[in-house]
Amino acid sequence: MRKILLKDTMLNGNRTDVLIAGHRFEKIAPGQIADAGTEIVNATGTAILPPFYNTHTHAAMTLLRGYADDKELFTWLNDHIWPFEAKMTARDIYEGSRLAILEMIRSGTVFFNDMYWQSDETVRAASEMGIRACVGMTVTDFIGEAAIEATFERLAALKPGNWADDAGLVRLTLAPHAVYTVCEKLWRRCADFARERGLLLHIHLAETRKEIADCVAAHGKTPVRWLDSLGVLGENVIAAHVVHVDDEEISILRERGVVIAHNPCSNMKLASGTFRSQAFSRAGCRVTIGTDGNASNNNLDMREETKFAALLAKVSGDPEALPAEEALAWATRNGAEAFGIDAGVIAEGRLADAVLVDLNNERLVPSHNLISNWVYSADSRCIRDVICNGKFLMRSGVIEGEAEILDAVRSLPLLNR
Amino acid sequence: MRKILLKDTMLNGNRTDVLIAGHRFEKIAPGQIADAGTEIVNATGTAILPPFYNTHTHAAMTLLRGYADDKELFTWLNDHIWPFEAKMTARDIYEGSRLAILEMIRSGTVFFNDMYWQSDETVRAASEMGIRACVGMTVTDFIGEAAIEATFERLAALKPGNWADDAGLVRLTLAPHAVYTVCEKLWRRCADFARERGLLLHIHLAETRKEIADCVAAHGKTPVRWLDSLGVLGENVIAAHVVHVDDEEISILRERGVVIAHNPCSNMKLASGTFRSQAFSRAGCRVTIGTDGNASNNNLDMREETKFAALLAKVSGDPEALPAEEALAWATRNGAEAFGIDAGVIAEGRLADAVLVDLNNERLVPSHNLISNWVYSADSRCIRDVICNGKFLMRSGVIEGEAEILDAVRSLPLLNR
Repeated sequence: MRKILLKDTMLNGNRTDVLIAGHRFEKIAPGQIADAGTEIVNATGTAILPPFYNTHTHAAMTLLRGYADDKELFTWLNDHIWPFEAKMTARDIYEGSRLAILEMIRSGTVFFNDMYWQSDETVRAASEMGIRACVGMTVTDFIGEAAIEATFERLAALKPGNWADDAGLVRLTLAPHAVYTVCEKLWRRCADFARERGLLLHIHLAETRKEIADCVAAHGKTPVRWLDSLGVLGENVIAAHVVHVDDEEISILRERGVVIAHNPCSNMKLASGTFRSQAFSRAGCRVTIGTDGNASNNNLDMREETKFAALLAKVSGDPEALPAEEALAWATRNGAEAFGIDAGVIAEGRLADAVLVDLNNERLVPSHNLISNWVYSADSRCIRDVICNGKFLMRSGVIEGEAEILDAVRSLPLLNR
Repeated sequence: MRKILLKDTMLNGNRTDVLIAGHRFEKIAPGQIADAGTEIVNATGTAILPPFYNTHTHAAMTLLRGYADDKELFTWLNDHIWPFEAKMTARDIYEGSRLAILEMIRSGTVFFNDMYWQSDETVRAASEMGIRACVGMTVTDFIGEAAIEATFERLAALKPGNWADDAGLVRLTLAPHAVYTVCEKLWRRCADFARERGLLLHIHLAETRKEIADCVAAHGKTPVRWLDSLGVLGENVIAAHVVHVDDEEISILRERGVVIAHNPCSNMKLASGTFRSQAFSRAGCRVTIGTDGNASNNNLDMREETKFAALLAKVSGDPEALPAEEALAWATRNGAEAFGIDAGVIAEGRLADAVLVDLNNERLVPSHNLISNWVYSADSRCIRDVICNGKFLMRSGVIEGEAEILDAVRSLPLLNR
């Protein structure tokens, strides 16, 4: 079994060595002696932290970064985003996904929960680059019966665990898009199918006021209540946004065990509304953090997103709302747990996912409180190494194939008209 | 005269050369031929952008980064910040200021407007490091008459222009702290003295609801109206925060030409309230951006601050509020103008302040819109060079003396008890 010894890092304020054996942390204690064959990595001057788990994004939309900003939501979608997307080929989705993954690795993320089209291209990109992912196959009423049937067939053919790769890092999920794009019949079919197959359901939920009003007009119920009445909501549901909910709906979401993916930058940028961080926290909901896609953020930097989450929570008027530690738990431990990844904390026996940050970076000085510095002050320049499943995705700032990915993106015909 | 030729950068989407002669941009056009003695800098793969002007901070408070977070304002001040500050020596202020300047240079800032104690230490740090600064000498009712008189004497002894250095980059200003710490008599004296001497007045204004309520109770007027009635408000006033103001007060601030320093992160983190970006913008006020000190942010990254400003403005419900270009103008051009620095735009004849960003950084790919990418997506890793007054403060990522500054901070007795 492949072994790596991280020599002399800091964990929770104490100097230690960290021995990784295969995919897991085997031993965390000072003074470890390396066996013959163990690779030794000098980690002096670093601290080891859990990496980020990005629980809602549209990776390939990185090709639309900066394409249209500061616009009203439906103008943005109808006049800019959808016409651009209509031109995207499989190659675009693959290269856009690779660019997204490159950015995520650089900023300390080892997992993303995706929702988009031509999922196999994103699966291929993730598998090649060694990052964990759940890739959602999107269904709506508008993609046509053939495409819907093909989606269910593809998912039905998956091996146990719904893995789409050989390494056991990339899964497919089913992604019924939202209450305004999926009819009752299709919602019921998705819910039943997912339950039978142990699939995750990745959905948008209660993002805008218009969504609520339209859902009430069409179904006599708010989106949360309507989906609950259809039997959709359960522990296998990852619901993105969830901005416009009342206390009773928060209770429903908690009781059903729905995972909430909070997207502060996207909600702010599109003026969707303000997420009820404290209410979700007090209710004991399973809250995680996602960046949403690059068209509405416009980066995939989970550290920045976590700062936005922590500060946005305080706009309510309470400076004690969502302290840095809790925000970081949402972005790390809660995200890993939501997807059944035995990681998100640095501990013996857990899967070896981690970032090593450079304590000599000026943003981490002085060192009164590393978690505070990491959430409120750091940026991606502080990150030296990124480890996923016991393997370096970034080592001393180097990601294999980086230049080739950037060249491939820049030479896409889509971006050179 | 010292000349630098930046060979082959991008300005406003076009490839160009940029010739700097002494402190100014002399020629901006492709195909420049270097004279003998001109230093040639390869800028292929970069874009040149105006750097940031940080219009409100407390540089030395970088020593308190992460010292106390997520607390109610007065608990935070009384139980944490003030007791720590009471122990700070001149050496601490000097080293804290150097650390702050290091961080600002790394994140593309070439000017900061400071307010703190023992100003000469911050002046010394800024002068040594070559950054522009206005360093405010703080006065309150509580520092004692001797300290107040010493402040006025020090300022009265300044040479014309109120320069505190020989290079003409660092000025002193007068900083009456706030309406709740400065009495009417001292406000009048500060206003008269500043007017006579051509000094800037750097103040906190209308930051919290409590400040408004207390001011109305004490003086029968809100802070803006009270200071206006005392004759304080004018074009030489830099007012930080300015969160709680009605439309009439915004008109007063516009008519008087007061410069507003918007601090979105600090206002969010301390739950002070939400700045009225659109109202200030529509009124045509002189709005700029500042980071506030590192105790309440907890970094001095103006790029991140600009993203916070742009996104916070949209929380009002309008996704078209404060577009990236306007937010960037607040953080660059408006800041330079407010302090009479003939810079903030990249143009022939202007002072040579600039950042060169690396267009190969994945955060700036694809390149649909560089301004959007810069404000919404970039981080400090995108910045290759920082130029201030025709001189490199950071060159290819290297800042002279960086390691020594970090070592000096870490060895401060204050941080090693």
